[in-house]
Amino acid sequence: MTAYADYKPLTFHDSAGRFTDGNDSPRAYLERCLETIAAREPVVKALTALNEQGARAAADESTARWKAGKPLSPIDGMPVAIKDLLETKDMPTEMGCAAMKGNFPKRDNAGVWALRQAGAVIIAKTVTAELGGSHPGATTNPFDPKRTPGGSSSGSAAAVGANMVPAAIGTQVGGSIIRPAAYCGNFALKPTQGGINRGERLATSMSTHGPHANSLDDMWQVAIEMAKRCGGDRGVMGLMGPDTLPAAIKPNRLIVLETEGWPDADAATKTGFAKFLDQLKASGVTLIRRADHPFVEALEEAIANGRAICNGITSWENRWYQRGMLDASPNGLSERAKAALLKAEAMTPDQYRTNLLARQQAQFAHQAVASLADAAITLACPGPAPIWEGDKPGQPLAARPTGDFVFNAPSSMLFAPVVTVPLMSVGGMPVGVQLIGQQHEDARMTGLARWFVGTLKRTATPA
Amino acid sequence: MTAYADYKPLTFHDSAGRFTDGNDSPRAYLERCLETIAAREPVVKALTALNEQGARAAADESTARWKAGKPLSPIDGMPVAIKDLLETKDMPTEMGCAAMKGNFPKRDNAGVWALRQAGAVIIAKTVTAELGGSHPGATTNPFDPKRTPGGSSSGSAAAVGANMVPAAIGTQVGGSIIRPAAYCGNFALKPTQGGINRGERLATSMSTHGPHANSLDDMWQVAIEMAKRCGGDRGVMGLMGPDTLPAAIKPNRLIVLETEGWPDADAATKTGFAKFLDQLKASGVTLIRRADHPFVEALEEAIANGRAICNGITSWENRWYQRGMLDASPNGLSERAKAALLKAEAMTPDQYRTNLLARQQAQFAHQAVASLADAAITLACPGPAPIWEGDKPGQPLAARPTGDFVFNAPSSMLFAPVVTVPLMSVGGMPVGVQLIGQQHEDARMTGLARWFVGTLKRTATPA
Repeated sequence: MTAYADYKPLTFHDSAGRFTDGNDSPRAYLERCLETIAAREPVVKALTALNEQGARAAADESTARWKAGKPLSPIDGMPVAIKDLLETKDMPTEMGCAAMKGNFPKRDNAGVWALRQAGAVIIAKTVTAELGGSHPGATTNPFDPKRTPGGSSSGSAAAVGANMVPAAIGTQVGGSIIRPAAYCGNFALKPTQGGINRGERLATSMSTHGPHANSLDDMWQVAIEMAKRCGGDRGVMGLMGPDTLPAAIKPNRLIVLETEGWPDADAATKTGFAKFLDQLKASGVTLIRRADHPFVEALEEAIANGRAICNGITSWENRWYQRGMLDASPNGLSERAKAALLKAEAMTPDQYRTNLLARQQAQFAHQAVASLADAAITLACPGPAPIWEGDKPGQPLAARPTGDFVFNAPSSMLFAPVVTVPLMSVGGMPVGVQLIGQQHEDARMTGLARWFVGTLKRTATPA
Repeated sequence: MTAYADYKPLTFHDSAGRFTDGNDSPRAYLERCLETIAAREPVVKALTALNEQGARAAADESTARWKAGKPLSPIDGMPVAIKDLLETKDMPTEMGCAAMKGNFPKRDNAGVWALRQAGAVIIAKTVTAELGGSHPGATTNPFDPKRTPGGSSSGSAAAVGANMVPAAIGTQVGGSIIRPAAYCGNFALKPTQGGINRGERLATSMSTHGPHANSLDDMWQVAIEMAKRCGGDRGVMGLMGPDTLPAAIKPNRLIVLETEGWPDADAATKTGFAKFLDQLKASGVTLIRRADHPFVEALEEAIANGRAICNGITSWENRWYQRGMLDASPNGLSERAKAALLKAEAMTPDQYRTNLLARQQAQFAHQAVASLADAAITLACPGPAPIWEGDKPGQPLAARPTGDFVFNAPSSMLFAPVVTVPLMSVGGMPVGVQLIGQQHEDARMTGLARWFVGTLKRTATPA
């Protein structure tokens, strides 16, 4: 375990020079990752499968390309881990679910295919909460094994936070990229809805794929290399933007959103966030809150019930495939997943439509604030990762063992791009701050995040 | 074989009275269907699987419900056949594709689940062109076995046209419901994009599920009973409308579209269509064509390249899953499908996006004509079903063995609801006329179609 204050994140983007002059190589880089995995995995438990042999072969090919001066892309040779909801041709896809045990379709998800086309080394699959829901896997937080890494992209966030890999792919429906990234000190991009081709994994109307990384450079590069090759989801334009990390953009005005989550944020985290905002003000950024403009107030109201809207939409959309799974494998789902399925099966199409209307209205309210500011910011999680010691036999199931997605539901239902930056620590644990843009402003949010990282200091607050 | 002039279509909606007074029953209705299947199937070859035992059990349960005066819906007891792209828990799902031979996931597609909830008797799976594409199965046209039934919903259209069942479920991406329905004398609804929940079958951004039937009543009833239970696709409102067949609506003005297809329509079909339009004029309906209004001209131009736009979008969207299939099963795809896959794999994301732009622009042009008329009408196919005798060894593959989707591409790319009505015959074979509405006007198109059927006579033209 590393104390977060001493954390030196493993990055990839700055290796190219050493790959060409022979002082380093993708193979050597990979071996260092494998050493870290060997050292950290027994406690962090981020991985469901590790393909050492395949990764070494891919890294050797990459090494040869860099030597020849012909890398396939700036991420050629980058070890990348893949959330175990996405299919990979060389490792099983078990989705954290007993019913999927042994599932091994031997084909690549479109995004995984794109990563390989760009030369990335697909090294491992990472633990997901069951079916991307709330029932946790075994992964622990890399900065404190008593705490959750967050979920459902638990293993992707933890593998990056433990320096096992410089980047990993996660997926988000409600808060499954941004929250675990925030708990594990990652940078992460939850793209505009549809930004990166989900391939076979068209799970729900608001799921997205996105990168976790230890730097903004690697985060952006992974995302854009994928989108350049496999595009976005069916029927939408998908992520577009510059070929390398967007230039830093200094914001003039930022909307500070409370969201439904503000009452749930702990006092130390609120203090830390206030310090963070003070830095912004000191840099000349104007902050706009709900009391300052009726459109911001309208947006706050439209997202005030975000968790319930997200849950209503997602559980309905998942009901048929989960019912099929349960019928085929009556012990194949957790009690947590079964309870969610039964709730979904009690819904009517009109109840689902009512949630869709609320989502659409919130998107309209979000459009209305576009001209007021450069972006919205808020906490990426209500506080540092909660302690999680497992369900207690005989007790009711804990509601949110991987943490609360209350700060993540808004951007999910808004279909908005989000970048989380690890610019706070509370009680020695990472806490993220998120930048939320209008749809298709992924590159602009990344540019604003770059200015944040270049200008602002990480705030440290005692617990 | 029945001559089309003597065809007496098998309907279901008018059976309820006889089910309650004991003069008929769902079980007896089913037995008559099974007799027709036994008589016609050896030549028509519409089915890939027949579940006699399961259908009889379901029909018996339905019989008991009708006797007790408690049917689950107006389609309780209706034998319905399902295109073999959709999963059914009691029959294999092989998608007309060698690579899928033996695939039997033992779960119901959301729409199939909804049909069962409404009491429908899921009797059989129907032949689809391979993977919903253009490589044909063995099905023949019920009115002339030398001719194609159309595709890709070949078996669904033919089973209805052969009176094996009163209704069947088809799917359309380019023209796979409306064209075979038109060739086989069916009524059919291709709903607004997303109208009926596709469940696991979220194949492409413009695929839809829809009913083929021998009457407008059964067509609408099947569609609305499904949508009432499983709703539409993820993220959209889905089909909504009255609980039973919408009232007839007399149109005041109709746009007559040429589409890209007009030059391909044969002379006899053009003559027949002119006679059909004469009836409309005689009924006081004003016809508006491209020369009459610049918006109609703009729409014609926007859809003039419809086939290529549809092909570009669909082949890109299918490439990852088809590549996975081919890698796993190198002899599992037809040469036709392999050629299409290689073309798709040569595309870039920007080429795909260009096609999406063209589709979106066409939808905008379609919106612009909304206030000009009650609907657009055009032929549903370029003529009667073509003769198809199979690929010739050593010759290049025939381009479109299941007929040309040139008249179907427009409504597909417009995401528009379409109803085809069997109101023409050419050379003794059925030819359809289609009503195309604005998005979400499914019920209104059905009401207009009802007026058509009640007011206009089928035109008969020699070949």
